[in-house]
Amino acid sequence: MGKRYTMPYEVAYYDGDITKQMTLPSMLAVVIKTSEEQSALLGRDAEYIAGLGLGWVITNYEIKIDRLPKVGEKITVTTEALSYNKYFCYRNFWIHDEEGNECVLIKSTFVLMNRENRKMGSVSEEIIAPYESEKIKKIQRSEKIEKVEDGRSQSYRVRYFDIDGNQHVNNAIYFNWLLDVLGYDFLSAHQPVHINVKFDKEVEYGHEVESHYDIVEEEQGLKTRHEIRIGEQLYCEANIRWN
Amino acid sequence: MGKRYTMPYEVAYYDGDITKQMTLPSMLAVVIKTSEEQSALLGRDAEYIAGLGLGWVITNYEIKIDRLPKVGEKITVTTEALSYNKYFCYRNFWIHDEEGNECVLIKSTFVLMNRENRKMGSVSEEIIAPYESEKIKKIQRSEKIEKVEDGRSQSYRVRYFDIDGNQHVNNAIYFNWLLDVLGYDFLSAHQPVHINVKFDKEVEYGHEVESHYDIVEEEQGLKTRHEIRIGEQLYCEANIRWN
Repeated sequence: MGKRYTMPYEVAYYDGDITKQMTLPSMLAVVIKTSEEQSALLGRDAEYIAGLGLGWVITNYEIKIDRLPKVGEKITVTTEALSYNKYFCYRNFWIHDEEGNECVLIKSTFVLMNRENRKMGSVSEEIIAPYESEKIKKIQRSEKIEKVEDGRSQSYRVRYFDIDGNQHVNNAIYFNWLLDVLGYDFLSAHQPVHINVKFDKEVEYGHEVESHYDIVEEEQGLKTRHEIRIGEQLYCEANIRWN
Repeated sequence: MGKRYTMPYEVAYYDGDITKQMTLPSMLAVVIKTSEEQSALLGRDAEYIAGLGLGWVITNYEIKIDRLPKVGEKITVTTEALSYNKYFCYRNFWIHDEEGNECVLIKSTFVLMNRENRKMGSVSEEIIAPYESEKIKKIQRSEKIEKVEDGRSQSYRVRYFDIDGNQHVNNAIYFNWLLDVLGYDFLSAHQPVHINVKFDKEVEYGHEVESHYDIVEEEQGLKTRHEIRIGEQLYCEANIRWN
């Protein structure tokens, strides 16, 4: 069990979609801010990591949504770096409402990437010790992501404001591409309840990605399957269950 | 002179561009939050206005930028509804840094739009009184915006997350289209110092707009001229001076 860090947040009008619910791109951007704040507090901010020639990269999220916070709502975002092994760090995020109910749980995997050759670096004691995470041997396998079979797609050009101070497309932007392709009628009528997303390769400025999806009917409801590709190269894949 | 309202804000990593300066889309989104908070405080929130069959629409901004706030910086945003006449309300916004230096001044014009027929409504005492703005006779004319003459363009499809709880494309999104078209090399090497932007017509979900621009060399520096159009129909126009 690692150190916990909690940050209060009030959902702004610009975080909301047409139903005044917090959008997934905004939610992920805010959530990641807690881990940045915790790292800064522990003397392990992005500049410190960059000084070692490394950078954090998120490889996947598993998101369980009871309900999305509404515009104007005061929430808390809590994070904890639970455990790590040689290459992978496992971090949870929770969103709670004012009554203390859990609205969202996000399980994430972080890896360290060498900034020069973009290869994975091992997790050193120096970097990880302050988080008081548990050292484990096991590699946690996330649920398998089903492929898109009978897909439709739309293309998205990476925009200047999609890239952040780390020169990369922020993870939160992928959710814009993953979801937008589903269209107004679908998005305004359905709520995501479970998301499994894997980031395979980094998208860069100048790229034009294709966001592919199909919709599968299951007993419990609808499932959408997603792939972000450039030609045959896979950049991101996701399965989303809806209510 | 109207009532003033000030809100503190800490620039988040997701507000920053690759130079870690606050982006104009983020800045405008945050700035407008102050006027929303003030209106709520004075019992004149968007729901109250909607109850009268009306909604606020911003028709233009004149923005003077000394410097853009940086990621991590603690700023204050102040707003004041200065004056109004039969149809137009004039509101200023200021961004100050921790030392009290003025970083940005935004002069804006708001009008009331009938939600059914999208026609301008007159500004009633009932709506405006709590702001203690000065009633004036004069209509303030903003600086004339020069047309694009020898332009290049790029098209932008309105995305689901570009529309907000008022079912409209948020003003801040226009700045994404206006600026993105200038490209990485221009944007990462130049700072905007003065922006004059006029919103002529509301863009809706499903639209695909073209963002046109040209670049003019002036004695004091570069000026870019912008038009957002669908075919021959003008939706937004802007002139921006750069350092």
